[in-house]
Amino acid sequence: MSLLTVGSVAFDALETPFGKTDKIIGGAATYITLAASYFTKENNLVAVVGGDFPDEMISLLQDHGVNTEGLEIVQDGKTFFWSGKYHEDMNTRDTLVTELNVMEHFDPIIPESYQGTTFLMLGNTVPATQKLIIERMTTRPKLIMLDTMNLWMNIAMDDLKAVLKMVDLITINDEEARQLSGEYSLRKAAKKILEMGPTTLIIKKGEHGALLFQGDRIFFAPALPLEEVFDPTGAGDTFAGGFIGYLASTDDISFENMKRAIIYGSAMASFCVEKFGTERIVNLTQEEINARVQDFVNLSSFEIQ
Amino acid sequence: MSLLTVGSVAFDALETPFGKTDKIIGGAATYITLAASYFTKENNLVAVVGGDFPDEMISLLQDHGVNTEGLEIVQDGKTFFWSGKYHEDMNTRDTLVTELNVMEHFDPIIPESYQGTTFLMLGNTVPATQKLIIERMTTRPKLIMLDTMNLWMNIAMDDLKAVLKMVDLITINDEEARQLSGEYSLRKAAKKILEMGPTTLIIKKGEHGALLFQGDRIFFAPALPLEEVFDPTGAGDTFAGGFIGYLASTDDISFENMKRAIIYGSAMASFCVEKFGTERIVNLTQEEINARVQDFVNLSSFEIQ
Repeated sequence: MSLLTVGSVAFDALETPFGKTDKIIGGAATYITLAASYFTKENNLVAVVGGDFPDEMISLLQDHGVNTEGLEIVQDGKTFFWSGKYHEDMNTRDTLVTELNVMEHFDPIIPESYQGTTFLMLGNTVPATQKLIIERMTTRPKLIMLDTMNLWMNIAMDDLKAVLKMVDLITINDEEARQLSGEYSLRKAAKKILEMGPTTLIIKKGEHGALLFQGDRIFFAPALPLEEVFDPTGAGDTFAGGFIGYLASTDDISFENMKRAIIYGSAMASFCVEKFGTERIVNLTQEEINARVQDFVNLSSFEIQ
Repeated sequence: MSLLTVGSVAFDALETPFGKTDKIIGGAATYITLAASYFTKENNLVAVVGGDFPDEMISLLQDHGVNTEGLEIVQDGKTFFWSGKYHEDMNTRDTLVTELNVMEHFDPIIPESYQGTTFLMLGNTVPATQKLIIERMTTRPKLIMLDTMNLWMNIAMDDLKAVLKMVDLITINDEEARQLSGEYSLRKAAKKILEMGPTTLIIKKGEHGALLFQGDRIFFAPALPLEEVFDPTGAGDTFAGGFIGYLASTDDISFENMKRAIIYGSAMASFCVEKFGTERIVNLTQEEINARVQDFVNLSSFEIQ
């Protein structure tokens, strides 16, 4: 089934204890569509970049089967730029630079050919923009998934709550779940968030795995313990892309299939952190992905006699 | 098979955001033997208390089938006392009082009837004392498991490394694994620790579950997301007691069975934190334990098609 991803396509400059990069390709929608490309062939993108965005980066997305018809290029504008530096433990980072540039007035246009899409992935961006996108879909997608962050809870909580009423699934990290709900216990937090609109919640805990909540059901997916985390940038988006790409490819939104989708998403994220930026997720083989998923099976399976 | 636990039996005074206690029964060996009592009937204890330790507390242990022949009572001494206060997030705590009392000169005597025990659990205490206990066993147990803490890494690292060479399994938390190995990555940390002597390592991550390492094999057990964590005191010891109690009851130290044992240990720990001190783990039924283990199965099982 078809997937539409709306979100940022950007330049990132990263610094980790292992090294630093110049401007490389980044942005939520970049990671999401690249990760999803290993699962679904109908992989549509809506985003905006400036005239400074290199053609070869667009070709890279296209080579992965990403439909860039909805990628607006503002010739006299500059591409969204983010620069960050990770601390020694890789779990925390400082934002050094945020230049919104063309994202500041992003007015997402949905190409006619994208209408009727079955899966809609709203990458992390201004909640009002996420709401606008849903309103611009002529038929409601089968599943709408939304990613957001603490920034919008701080400065646009009302807008965020408005769009939450319109989506099926929200994905946030543990601290954001606590902030959004006002509850420290993740189980209580989940209960409150599921009363805000979505039927399903994914709480990402980074190196500690992810929790899936739906009604009274909970599923926990571990993260793979890695020898080295090289660069965590984009891991959450890669997770989301693998997750919704798998759902779209199977066209099955049952709880059991979402559990599988979380494992595929976690596998994709485990690749992402092994190298800088998108480097590791642009050249994966199906065999590598299957082997990594098997690692998750081995890691977490047990039998009670 | 028989289990011998050596460790502290103590008084604790606890303060959490939910309330505070006067002196209640605590200590590593208390939690370990109580948890193990649900699995193994040969549950032997070596510990020391003062003349101030109430008979009814000893009866409580005996009622759970704990053999207290090795519980030394120093009539003119005082029982080990620890007092702590938990922070709002329950993950960190301040020690308010530590009075070693009779633990300061603890000279563990192994009763003759305990010799030939198959499973030896060394609760967290002075590493030199742990070593002495192993040396006092006339036949080497089938499995020796050791718990320790950062304090001993700070003040008795050489003694700790000496006893590590003599044990099969060590259980520590993630920060302690990093301190002991000098590696931030838990996978690298595990590799180094397994070169120090033990063939098996369990890294406890509290609300984030536990990792089991043996050779190149890794197993991850989640923690159950709870509505409320009331008091985390003793959770790690209860985990260890459930784990080794299950191993002793099945007399099977294969990796597959250790995976099951970790789930049983995690289930016991999930009960422990629901009430103050040992309150929740002194009155469990087999049905409650089985239902809780089933919660873990439901939480973490998935099938890749």
